[in-house]
Amino acid sequence: MTLPTGRARRPGPSVRVRVREHLEGRTRRREDRLATEEPLEVRLEWPGHPAERVAVTMRTPGHDFELAAGLLLAEGVLVPDALETVAYCTDVRLAPEQEFNVVTVTLGGPPPRSPSGRGATVTAASSACGVCGADSIDEVVALASVVTPAVPAAPVPAELLTALPGRMREAQRVFDSTGGLHAAVLVDGAGELLVLREDVGRHNAVDKVVGARVLAGQPTAVPLMCVSGRIGFEIVQKAVAAGIGVIAAIGAPSSLAVRLAEEAGLGVVGFLSAKRFVVYAGGDRVEG
Amino acid sequence: MTLPTGRARRPGPSVRVRVREHLEGRTRRREDRLATEEPLEVRLEWPGHPAERVAVTMRTPGHDFELAAGLLLAEGVLVPDALETVAYCTDVRLAPEQEFNVVTVTLGGPPPRSPSGRGATVTAASSACGVCGADSIDEVVALASVVTPAVPAAPVPAELLTALPGRMREAQRVFDSTGGLHAAVLVDGAGELLVLREDVGRHNAVDKVVGARVLAGQPTAVPLMCVSGRIGFEIVQKAVAAGIGVIAAIGAPSSLAVRLAEEAGLGVVGFLSAKRFVVYAGGDRVEG
Repeated sequence: MTLPTGRARRPGPSVRVRVREHLEGRTRRREDRLATEEPLEVRLEWPGHPAERVAVTMRTPGHDFELAAGLLLAEGVLVPDALETVAYCTDVRLAPEQEFNVVTVTLGGPPPRSPSGRGATVTAASSACGVCGADSIDEVVALASVVTPAVPAAPVPAELLTALPGRMREAQRVFDSTGGLHAAVLVDGAGELLVLREDVGRHNAVDKVVGARVLAGQPTAVPLMCVSGRIGFEIVQKAVAAGIGVIAAIGAPSSLAVRLAEEAGLGVVGFLSAKRFVVYAGGDRVEG
Repeated sequence: MTLPTGRARRPGPSVRVRVREHLEGRTRRREDRLATEEPLEVRLEWPGHPAERVAVTMRTPGHDFELAAGLLLAEGVLVPDALETVAYCTDVRLAPEQEFNVVTVTLGGPPPRSPSGRGATVTAASSACGVCGADSIDEVVALASVVTPAVPAAPVPAELLTALPGRMREAQRVFDSTGGLHAAVLVDGAGELLVLREDVGRHNAVDKVVGARVLAGQPTAVPLMCVSGRIGFEIVQKAVAAGIGVIAAIGAPSSLAVRLAEEAGLGVVGFLSAKRFVVYAGGDRVEG
């Protein structure tokens, strides 16, 4: 992987701002930190096919190569073995402040599936969309065939699940300073946190942990993924595409998320806390 | 506005499911409710131009016409005066379960701006994207010229703000039953809640309150909007397009959200609670 030699400053995960705080009738001016949000454009190329924009997502800068790889895997565009390089774009027409907002993914050959060209955040909606001619659930389940799903050797123990929120919070260094970030973490069968990533977008955090495994040459099909927010359809779609066994969340799943998970055989756990959780799908994958 | 006569059952805002709850070592099976998530396809037509898909968004069914109108207003595609009708699509090729997932918006003439054709959730990202050739901030500020922004007659009182979280929660009937919904509310200068809407998606809730004003023939440029989640770039973009004076949120704003708000003259309040809030932009629009 190559890095450009441009003079642009790489944006950090948070920025400092001056704010006015109102607390019980008193006002004070102080410094605050905000989670950085910047657009990331993902371009895709392979031999004989020039780089073309396939996705744009608003994200927290950092781990951009992982984000690009995870996003393309979730779209069914990237088979890990076909990945050649991921690099910041060196297009000379880019404004300096955009140099670190464009990533080019190079494949060894044509992708198994045409990129939708719709950008990251709408991907799931469009492939979800029976109204657009394709049967949502079937199409997403078919996407999952790119990888072999992780069937946990044994049901995930309840104690492993209830310990996760605390361990995730401990591991979220950025969280406390901005209060505005989502996290995703991959966990192995012994309860070890394999990789944790944060982002202003829930979907990006999931793409980053999956992409981290891809770039490290490791399997994405791991027994457990835990996310800090809610579980919508798109999050389940990404988990299925990566071959995850069980997805757990601090928040609630949606109706369509549970329907897709049941169809794809993914376990879904919601309202996860130190004392409690609720199993919505794939009950045989969770102890109890 | 017309409604189709199809036999499809309109999906409700939540669905019942059987779950297994784990609480401090004990397990019980019970019924639970999930926020409904379904795709909504928005089609746009005008005289001489056949209906064409311009957006797909994953949403909580209900107030679909408002969602479609608000979404197109935020894109700069819809000028309220040009709106003729909004109706569920009567395309005979639709599967029965999709009948209430497609809405057609009919304009009296061509829109002032081409629909992006990218779907709701990626709109902001693409227009945000300096990397795509357009200067993000400038383009979004230009969009705002569709409506005249609401400049509050007087700065918003601190007591009005701190009272909002409680009043929003009271008004959120669906919230308690699913635990998975975002809310947005429009508030007038006297602190009256004008309209409140909920959705699995934060962006949809904002589109719905703005669209409700459009369909009622009322101005969208109101002094205050309050949202239950965080404030990202796309939320500010929608507030600016609607001409809102101040946006307040229970959560944190992102860096790009604050940058756009400063540029557009929108007030931004974060971390709103009964005791405290933080002013990030447009400080002269908030008392203190």
